[in-house]
Amino acid sequence: MRYSQYFIPTVKETPADAEVISHQLMLRAGMIRKVAAGVYNYLPLGLRSIRKVEQIVREEMNRAGAIELLMPMVTPAELWQESGRWEFYGKELLRFKDRKDGEFCLGPTHEEVITDIVRREIRSYRQLPINLYQIQTKFRDEIRPRFGLMRGREFIMKDAYSFDVDSSAADLSYDKMYQAYRRIFERCGLNFRAVEADTGSIGGSSSHEFMVLADSGEDAILSCSGCDYAANVEKAESRPFPEAKGELLPKEAVETPDRKTIEEVAAFLGIKPEQTVKALIVVADGEPVMALVRGDHDLNELKLKNFLGAAELEMADDEVYVKACGGPVGFAGPCGVTVRVIADQAIQGMCNFVVGGNAKDQHFRNANHRDFTVKAFADIRTVVAGDACPRCSGGKMEVWRGIEVGHVFKLGTKYSEKLKATYLDADGKEQVIFMGCYGIGVGRSVAACIEQNHDANGIIFPLPIAPFHCIVSALSVKEEPVVKASEDIYNRLAAAGVEVLLDDRDERPGFKFKDADLIGIPLRIVVGAKNLAEGKVELKHRKSGEVELLPIDEAVAKVQQLVAEALAQ
Amino acid sequence: MRYSQYFIPTVKETPADAEVISHQLMLRAGMIRKVAAGVYNYLPLGLRSIRKVEQIVREEMNRAGAIELLMPMVTPAELWQESGRWEFYGKELLRFKDRKDGEFCLGPTHEEVITDIVRREIRSYRQLPINLYQIQTKFRDEIRPRFGLMRGREFIMKDAYSFDVDSSAADLSYDKMYQAYRRIFERCGLNFRAVEADTGSIGGSSSHEFMVLADSGEDAILSCSGCDYAANVEKAESRPFPEAKGELLPKEAVETPDRKTIEEVAAFLGIKPEQTVKALIVVADGEPVMALVRGDHDLNELKLKNFLGAAELEMADDEVYVKACGGPVGFAGPCGVTVRVIADQAIQGMCNFVVGGNAKDQHFRNANHRDFTVKAFADIRTVVAGDACPRCSGGKMEVWRGIEVGHVFKLGTKYSEKLKATYLDADGKEQVIFMGCYGIGVGRSVAACIEQNHDANGIIFPLPIAPFHCIVSALSVKEEPVVKASEDIYNRLAAAGVEVLLDDRDERPGFKFKDADLIGIPLRIVVGAKNLAEGKVELKHRKSGEVELLPIDEAVAKVQQLVAEALAQ
Repeated sequence: MRYSQYFIPTVKETPADAEVISHQLMLRAGMIRKVAAGVYNYLPLGLRSIRKVEQIVREEMNRAGAIELLMPMVTPAELWQESGRWEFYGKELLRFKDRKDGEFCLGPTHEEVITDIVRREIRSYRQLPINLYQIQTKFRDEIRPRFGLMRGREFIMKDAYSFDVDSSAADLSYDKMYQAYRRIFERCGLNFRAVEADTGSIGGSSSHEFMVLADSGEDAILSCSGCDYAANVEKAESRPFPEAKGELLPKEAVETPDRKTIEEVAAFLGIKPEQTVKALIVVADGEPVMALVRGDHDLNELKLKNFLGAAELEMADDEVYVKACGGPVGFAGPCGVTVRVIADQAIQGMCNFVVGGNAKDQHFRNANHRDFTVKAFADIRTVVAGDACPRCSGGKMEVWRGIEVGHVFKLGTKYSEKLKATYLDADGKEQVIFMGCYGIGVGRSVAACIEQNHDANGIIFPLPIAPFHCIVSALSVKEEPVVKASEDIYNRLAAAGVEVLLDDRDERPGFKFKDADLIGIPLRIVVGAKNLAEGKVELKHRKSGEVELLPIDEAVAKVQQLVAEALAQ
Repeated sequence: MRYSQYFIPTVKETPADAEVISHQLMLRAGMIRKVAAGVYNYLPLGLRSIRKVEQIVREEMNRAGAIELLMPMVTPAELWQESGRWEFYGKELLRFKDRKDGEFCLGPTHEEVITDIVRREIRSYRQLPINLYQIQTKFRDEIRPRFGLMRGREFIMKDAYSFDVDSSAADLSYDKMYQAYRRIFERCGLNFRAVEADTGSIGGSSSHEFMVLADSGEDAILSCSGCDYAANVEKAESRPFPEAKGELLPKEAVETPDRKTIEEVAAFLGIKPEQTVKALIVVADGEPVMALVRGDHDLNELKLKNFLGAAELEMADDEVYVKACGGPVGFAGPCGVTVRVIADQAIQGMCNFVVGGNAKDQHFRNANHRDFTVKAFADIRTVVAGDACPRCSGGKMEVWRGIEVGHVFKLGTKYSEKLKATYLDADGKEQVIFMGCYGIGVGRSVAACIEQNHDANGIIFPLPIAPFHCIVSALSVKEEPVVKASEDIYNRLAAAGVEVLLDDRDERPGFKFKDADLIGIPLRIVVGAKNLAEGKVELKHRKSGEVELLPIDEAVAKVQQLVAEALAQ
């Protein structure tokens, strides 16, 4: 491709409304343009990277035996009513009526549509397992679309759905996808972690998220320094602490005037925060519940919600708080309360700790388990850096920031039961199909890649998803030998299957280099009159900054070799 | 691909709700499934053919210098309000509101969005010409979606938009696209005609439709037997007839009791219909107009509307009719009327003809131009088979049925003026950009192909857009040598780049052959025990039905050669 005949509208200034680096760089590099909030044009350069990710996804899905099809973006209400999500799904599901008053929505995901296909076409266990996928444009009416392609409303997604005869067969399909996802993100050249995750509103029994590691990531990830264990912050399990040994002292009330926070109380009493227990009042499906966590720990609301099996869980307002513990806000404690008390397992081994006294400026010192009733101990706190690994002995948890680019779910029979997707087993008996679903955000993968791979000058694309492998910069288009050599190198590389961009614009070298750095092409051949006089050109590596002065033939051969190596996976 | 591990849900029975053959066969061959009216799932086999068309389109667009990008399906009202189409476009434009009450529509075409990109990024004549295209899912809320992919509501379209400095540069861009379209449909293996067409609601100065010829086509096409001239029926021009020589006889009133139609009057008076002139009353932008055409000709309302420059034109109701000609319905004639009279040019050379008398049961014999006032003679009739070609001498017009699969338009400055898409010329003066737009219905091309290529047994795909090039039918999967030879042939063909489907199902030969015929794979290798004993297999050509008994190596080589030949364009 000739730069002069292509369309790469680069921008010097950092756009004011772009907060994160990938959004800024994709705008500046002329990869995307905003059409409306969360809705983008993919300009030629952006589309090329997106297509690269799509193709890697496609190849690995096919290799794993999944079959590609394509479902519509406009889907009828009836299917969503059957699954119950027409009501359940919030405003992210963009609903509308057609000219005949039929109700439709833009598909944010396609469990209903694919299950409808399968229930109509699959009849026998002989037709299972099957895994069907599509690469398609989705729409989710996010309340706060932001960060460019990172959290858009209209976006390209690969979604796959597996169908199996039973739970253990579904586990095999899940594992295949898990492995395919690892290969996909490896081939894309991304530094990522697969982490255990909560299943959220999609439902199902277990799930993993694939997280691209980047400081700007919206999600916190915890992984063990000693073993493979990794999970997102919502899901990461804690390990109980060893029991504290010591004589149980008598409980005593202490005045803590105006000390409300754990830090204030601990400082006032001359103890560490981990010698206190804080009590939080939540409302789970309408019922007030007291949650206890160690003073230096944070309650993980999602864990508590899952433990209680609650559909809704939120922090109590002041009125409920006061009613539940009988004292003012800031002094809640477990002694004497009648609401259900759930304590984090870290508290199980504590003794002689401080708790709130359910009265103004009042705490109890040397509280112990004998002094209150706990309904259950459970893992309800958020894991933090330095915690012991729940799986191995000796490993410590480390914290990373990550961007979710893929998610795999075991769905069980959630959708197949609702939509009556069944098959006849070998005995002719009707059985419900077990499902899994598997998503990859294609555009978001490109954005996450840029969050992970950039410097002050612009994007640093890994070769497998770079819009072009190599850029040939003709330093002056007014000098015949430079033009001739540039064209020659361009043609030779293109003929060898290298995706090459020839910067044939009548611009100054500095201008060209700035653009080349900004758009992040991994390899650059610089053709200048001076070096050319000696039959040489510069080969610059965008990532390392390394520059090699090479004879033309060697430069061409080296680019070919580097491209072949990077794509050989 | 192994048939047993793929997803081709074929159906024996002809689906009741499918009227046209392509719709029936695409359902039966397991290529598509209906989700809602005009909204389809593309099952794996259907998607493969669609992707083939897409790839041919992409290659030819790139070859013609067009640049691929991707615009969103959800587009904001503001852009459509700027162009005026938010009001003007009918209910086919599906409008809706997002969660923040913002107004949007599903893009049925993208003139507004692309012009918005260009007006923001193109500033100088040095950046022109440019041609940007996308292959994208569109939605048009058709009042009567029908015929499967032929007239769906959600459909895949390639739309390209050219931008030029002036009208003659725009003509060059148009010609490039015209030539690219010819190559695209040739490469797809379609029998088609490029015809002159009306520009319709897209607007602009001239356009061509690309029509796949098929008896079931919705559109009538006229083409000359002697030259290149071809146009659709709405647009096809007529040639004036030579002047009739003869003595003008005196006009006389004749009673024609109860004879209203031309045929009745002509029979009653013992003359031919072409010796009569019929008068039709239309209402053009509110004004009644009398249109005259020869008795055996039909008024072409679109031609009349274009000639009058009217925004709206419809046939008059009885009340307007009676008021316009002063007599009852069925007896209108031009003599003595005060409304504007427009006559088809075929009437210009007639003499001594019969016209209506504007009174019950009354006609005039030997009417002549002296007897009434014509505001203008114009080409306002529909051309029919056998008419003289308007371009060459001696050629006769022939009528075909066709399916529109592509359409190219010269848009002029219709959108660029409204959206203020301008550039600075070499003198630094601001100028309006000239545009063209160019569409191809991707799914419809596959459907049209099937309308053109099928027999009683199913689809007969041209090789370039067949979902697979070759099917290897293992006649019995219980006989080891058959399985081994089939696998071997399958592997060898696949390794040579042939897209091959291995029918490894445990089914009877007749069952497999029926499916193979139905899904229309161009080449079939049949591996049976009997022939195999002599080291031979059958090579069957789906189109000709020809069967060759060949040694395995020869069969494999021949398939490779046939595929290479078919794709070498």
